[in-house]
Amino acid sequence: MTGSQDQHVPGASPTVTVLAGGVGGAKLAQGLARCVEDLTVVVNTADDVELYGLAISPDLDTVMYTLAGVANPATGWGVIDETYEALGAMQRLGEPTWFTLGDRDLATHVLRTDRLRQGRPLSAVTAELAAALGVRARLLPMTDDRVATIVETPAGTLGFQEYFVARRHQDEVVGLTFDGIDAARPAPGVLAALADADVVVLAPSNPFVSIGPVLAVPGVRAALAGTRARRVGVSPIVAGDALKGPAADMLRGLGHEVSALGVARLYQGLLDVLCIDEQDRELAAPIEDLGIEVLVTQAVMQGPEDRERLARELLVAAGAA
Amino acid sequence: MTGSQDQHVPGASPTVTVLAGGVGGAKLAQGLARCVEDLTVVVNTADDVELYGLAISPDLDTVMYTLAGVANPATGWGVIDETYEALGAMQRLGEPTWFTLGDRDLATHVLRTDRLRQGRPLSAVTAELAAALGVRARLLPMTDDRVATIVETPAGTLGFQEYFVARRHQDEVVGLTFDGIDAARPAPGVLAALADADVVVLAPSNPFVSIGPVLAVPGVRAALAGTRARRVGVSPIVAGDALKGPAADMLRGLGHEVSALGVARLYQGLLDVLCIDEQDRELAAPIEDLGIEVLVTQAVMQGPEDRERLARELLVAAGAA
Repeated sequence: MTGSQDQHVPGASPTVTVLAGGVGGAKLAQGLARCVEDLTVVVNTADDVELYGLAISPDLDTVMYTLAGVANPATGWGVIDETYEALGAMQRLGEPTWFTLGDRDLATHVLRTDRLRQGRPLSAVTAELAAALGVRARLLPMTDDRVATIVETPAGTLGFQEYFVARRHQDEVVGLTFDGIDAARPAPGVLAALADADVVVLAPSNPFVSIGPVLAVPGVRAALAGTRARRVGVSPIVAGDALKGPAADMLRGLGHEVSALGVARLYQGLLDVLCIDEQDRELAAPIEDLGIEVLVTQAVMQGPEDRERLARELLVAAGAA
Repeated sequence: MTGSQDQHVPGASPTVTVLAGGVGGAKLAQGLARCVEDLTVVVNTADDVELYGLAISPDLDTVMYTLAGVANPATGWGVIDETYEALGAMQRLGEPTWFTLGDRDLATHVLRTDRLRQGRPLSAVTAELAAALGVRARLLPMTDDRVATIVETPAGTLGFQEYFVARRHQDEVVGLTFDGIDAARPAPGVLAALADADVVVLAPSNPFVSIGPVLAVPGVRAALAGTRARRVGVSPIVAGDALKGPAADMLRGLGHEVSALGVARLYQGLLDVLCIDEQDRELAAPIEDLGIEVLVTQAVMQGPEDRERLARELLVAAGAA
């Protein structure tokens, strides 16, 4: 390791690691990929699900497709110009089809499943698939071990995709567990990516079910707490609501303030800077009282160029651009 | 078992069992399905191949799709109005794509693979898939065990699909082996379907690589030789050439006469009646000299209605209609 990894030299491209879930994390990762040469994205896999015997990694695929430039711009997930003929055939064959699997997407799942069944780790398979799609950033699952988010609701215990997709995250969330997390080991490269980075970015992903599982992998939270990197987060809550998905409902259901301040409290000790939206400017002072610097800007990414704009502002706030 | 299964009562719908490969067998099976109520199709599985970890049974699927009325009429195999988006994605992911997998077809392979991996036998999985598609005939793989046709050519030893699809069956065939055949057991129902039938039909499929493996499953040849059913075959060779595929080349390469007479010799002792085309009328006498009755008719099925016409003529020749 050279000195440049201990202290970033202004002007050189910094080494950046992002912790990410799905769509929001993918967009910010794409913005960062346009700004820096050495980018690692550590992705939540606790949403992973097996359907029809296929190993499906929704967050990994969302990040991969986005970085490859083939994500569906309308949804943020799935593949652009996707078709659903296989899913229609599944339905005619009497199978449940609540999980939207596109035909192009299906190729990814079939290949991933085959390679995992050959005994290869998810991290190696992910690297191959991403490379085949021309992704230059390093894409790492948080772990090669199986972890599954279990959602406790008044309606009972649900698997994550059942809660999120099949029931459209309309159940109140009263508890979350990550099945398998205690035995999970960080995937090869994850801890080094945190230790060696100039900047670690916590993407505007759900703190509970996207960033939460990544931090819960044994060793990750300590690595983030102890890294010499500048740690910059982006609040997924703007003006009291989530940019996307059930983050606001989860904050509320689990007894937290539904605001960027609530997010800041969740990440206390793990962040040097939190980026909040201009609409939440009045939260800057109480967040700074937690010992977290605040970057007030337009935190909502509007389009592809805007991802790069936000990424660059984060790097500047981290002293790395 | 009632007496009606020992001797067919004219006027009642006969119990019919077909031994079949892919397209030709599927067409005739469809014709028979329109004529009789109790139809069993025993299908070659020695062509089965695993690609991308998917269990693919080309002949079973061709028969299933044809009987379900969803086969591609242009090719005889695959699904009508098929798309190939997943295959295109496979190619972009760096995978070989010489085997044409349609998106709708892919659903069949994914479900079959999943159910086989759960430890279920191919015969049970096939029955479920066929029932889901509305197939009323009983569709049986020749065996639940793995058998693989190996093709010896001057260019070396090839797997069947490699020979047939990837290399477009252009290599001379100098030998054939069915790997796993000695340990293979007939699938549940196969031997009973031969013993209990009023009529057994050998479809106009390739005698070597379609009907051959079925007959080579231990017990099947003896069951066919010993059945009280009338056994009626249709020559896949018309006017010295194959209706489809490499049957003519294989007869030649393996030292047989390339004619309906050559076919008759292969099936001697297993057939009561051989249906040959009007163009081959002069072969009727030498075939009868082998102890096989001859039905001379238009043996080539021209369209969907023509399949029923040929099926009905076969049943009449068998004394079952």
